[in-house]
Amino acid sequence: MAYPAYAQRARDISPAPLVADLDGLIWFGSGDAYPEILPDLGDVALRAAREFRTETLQYAPRGGLPELREWIAGYLAADGIRLTPDSILIVNGAKHGIELACKLFLDPGDAIAVGRPTYQSALGIFRSWQIELIEVGGDDDGLDVAELETRLLERARTGRRAPKLIYEMPEFHNPTGVTLSEARRRALLDIAERHDLLILEDDPYRRIRFEGQPVPPLSSLDGGGRVVSLGTFSKLLAPGIRVGWVAAAPDIVGRMAALKADGGSCPFTQRMIIEYCRAGRFEPHIAAAAKAYASQRDVMAQAVAREIPGARFRLPSGGYYLWVRLPDGIDTDQLLTSAHTHGVDFLPASRFYATPGPRNYLRLAYSYAPPTELMDGVRRLGKALRQSPPRP
Amino acid sequence: MAYPAYAQRARDISPAPLVADLDGLIWFGSGDAYPEILPDLGDVALRAAREFRTETLQYAPRGGLPELREWIAGYLAADGIRLTPDSILIVNGAKHGIELACKLFLDPGDAIAVGRPTYQSALGIFRSWQIELIEVGGDDDGLDVAELETRLLERARTGRRAPKLIYEMPEFHNPTGVTLSEARRRALLDIAERHDLLILEDDPYRRIRFEGQPVPPLSSLDGGGRVVSLGTFSKLLAPGIRVGWVAAAPDIVGRMAALKADGGSCPFTQRMIIEYCRAGRFEPHIAAAAKAYASQRDVMAQAVAREIPGARFRLPSGGYYLWVRLPDGIDTDQLLTSAHTHGVDFLPASRFYATPGPRNYLRLAYSYAPPTELMDGVRRLGKALRQSPPRP
Repeated sequence: MAYPAYAQRARDISPAPLVADLDGLIWFGSGDAYPEILPDLGDVALRAAREFRTETLQYAPRGGLPELREWIAGYLAADGIRLTPDSILIVNGAKHGIELACKLFLDPGDAIAVGRPTYQSALGIFRSWQIELIEVGGDDDGLDVAELETRLLERARTGRRAPKLIYEMPEFHNPTGVTLSEARRRALLDIAERHDLLILEDDPYRRIRFEGQPVPPLSSLDGGGRVVSLGTFSKLLAPGIRVGWVAAAPDIVGRMAALKADGGSCPFTQRMIIEYCRAGRFEPHIAAAAKAYASQRDVMAQAVAREIPGARFRLPSGGYYLWVRLPDGIDTDQLLTSAHTHGVDFLPASRFYATPGPRNYLRLAYSYAPPTELMDGVRRLGKALRQSPPRP
Repeated sequence: MAYPAYAQRARDISPAPLVADLDGLIWFGSGDAYPEILPDLGDVALRAAREFRTETLQYAPRGGLPELREWIAGYLAADGIRLTPDSILIVNGAKHGIELACKLFLDPGDAIAVGRPTYQSALGIFRSWQIELIEVGGDDDGLDVAELETRLLERARTGRRAPKLIYEMPEFHNPTGVTLSEARRRALLDIAERHDLLILEDDPYRRIRFEGQPVPPLSSLDGGGRVVSLGTFSKLLAPGIRVGWVAAAPDIVGRMAALKADGGSCPFTQRMIIEYCRAGRFEPHIAAAAKAYASQRDVMAQAVAREIPGARFRLPSGGYYLWVRLPDGIDTDQLLTSAHTHGVDFLPASRFYATPGPRNYLRLAYSYAPPTELMDGVRRLGKALRQSPPRP
């Protein structure tokens, strides 16, 4: 039997488990929210179901509920992003926005530029579109834009296709935690303009800042309509709510809406968010969340320094993750197997590189586990590490 | 400026309006639910937000909540569909399932077979995948499977690519309202087996039956794993809830899960459905809904017979729509403009044909408007028609 005859893009993709089997493990793998700060959405859920029943239980407008698009426009304006609501499309989380950008812009064989390392879920989506991934390194100031330009010029010289998009998480990068400096942001926009590229700016952690001053978003500095920006309530309110947005020029957003196969996203959860934000509960919640994650970061950072000799990491000023470098020779894919037997989960370096890269990094999420588990999990990790000596 | 450089699939797609401007019109266009029978989900929303907070506000398992997948397996078993929960993937409505089937199975240049006419939203999704659409006609027994086989043999003879999928809505077809007979279903499965095709069975209206006996779903008759079946709570509970499912062989479902860019669908609305169904409210709701839609159908059918001389239609035994044939020479695209000035909206024939077809049909949804508006809207339509004489 020839069937199932999968499309080219699906032939190398393994079936995903429908439910991850992580029972009994301490979770440092996933960017779930800290359970204690999940908001009480009971009253807004009740209002969505009762007062707004004929709105929330019918099909929503394709672009999303207008009131939510207006609220988001106001939210973005506070960051200097001047967009009208017709530039805002509601989607099912920022990953859905990445998918729509791929569908709108990318043909098989096209190229996009990504950081090295970069967000593992974005990589998964990009891989499913059969495109070439051009990896660009970085340092403490974020993506190395000079390297990016060198790569672009080199490709032009050798007749290779220019990338259509640059995917970047400029604020509290996942996994590295680094924030792209303002000078680099301006340089990146300049490169995009000169080389005729679009920037896909993925900015979920912006408001989860523990210290220091925020840097203007790429979309606030964008004079040429080159930035397609992604936001989400996943990291602002709750991951499970599955409401995010794309902010871009109206003709881009309108075409994404046309390609959005589900029609309008769920109006029920959109209405819950509108009522929550309008009641003035958004800002206090964000402030409490940032405070909680700062404390979580400190607990985990101290535990890593104490329990894992030789571990090195930057202390991130925001976001959910520590990106930890272990001594050379450690293979974190192998370490993961051993860590599971010790009762702790994390994401190994290999998940974050488009092509094979260093193996001695791992991403530890401090977002989800309570402080006692942060300490216990890091201790278990240290134990797993001591029992997995580096390869010779 | 070369940008935005849209992908091939997006170049012919016009931006979609983010909000449809149908204010003040009587709505016969969209398959929204009858507002009076929208369920009260207040208590289950409250429980989802409070009792299940740490489940509903965190990321869900990629396949969906296991309890919902189990409930769906039981629901399908009542129709003779024997599937374990590892064959069921939760998606954001059935259209999302169509999109995932396209992504999993279709390369540019591939072909799929569809009815002539067929569901307009499915057509929109198929068109965005740059594939060839092979249209097959039908009659009172549904899709003309003999014509399908003739087309397949002709393509084989002339060296053209066989379709990979057949898309079919066998029960209360949208827009025609026709149900595919059991004999034709068996013949269709036989053709799929002999010609090595998959069937994408889209079955949203099955339980909205007004009279007569249900016909076994294709997936219940499928001995060879050839059916990928789509279901949704949109037509069972509420369109806005955006929860549907794909039921297929586990390796198909697992690969769709891997391609599902949003990770897991919204656990909040999934939990609302679980609690609603477990409380024994699902069956009484469906019975009430079918009764309401039967009455709606009768009101509209009588109004069309009375107000639109020359209109012909089959009285559907279920579903949401009348598929009305107007006298030859009427162009329903033109009629729509005139109907809007008379205050009524509908979908013209052109939306349902992959290639230009008859223009003198229209789809009237009786699902949404209250009885007085059903009568008033059809009256307005009659008036618009009298003022738009047939082309010479």
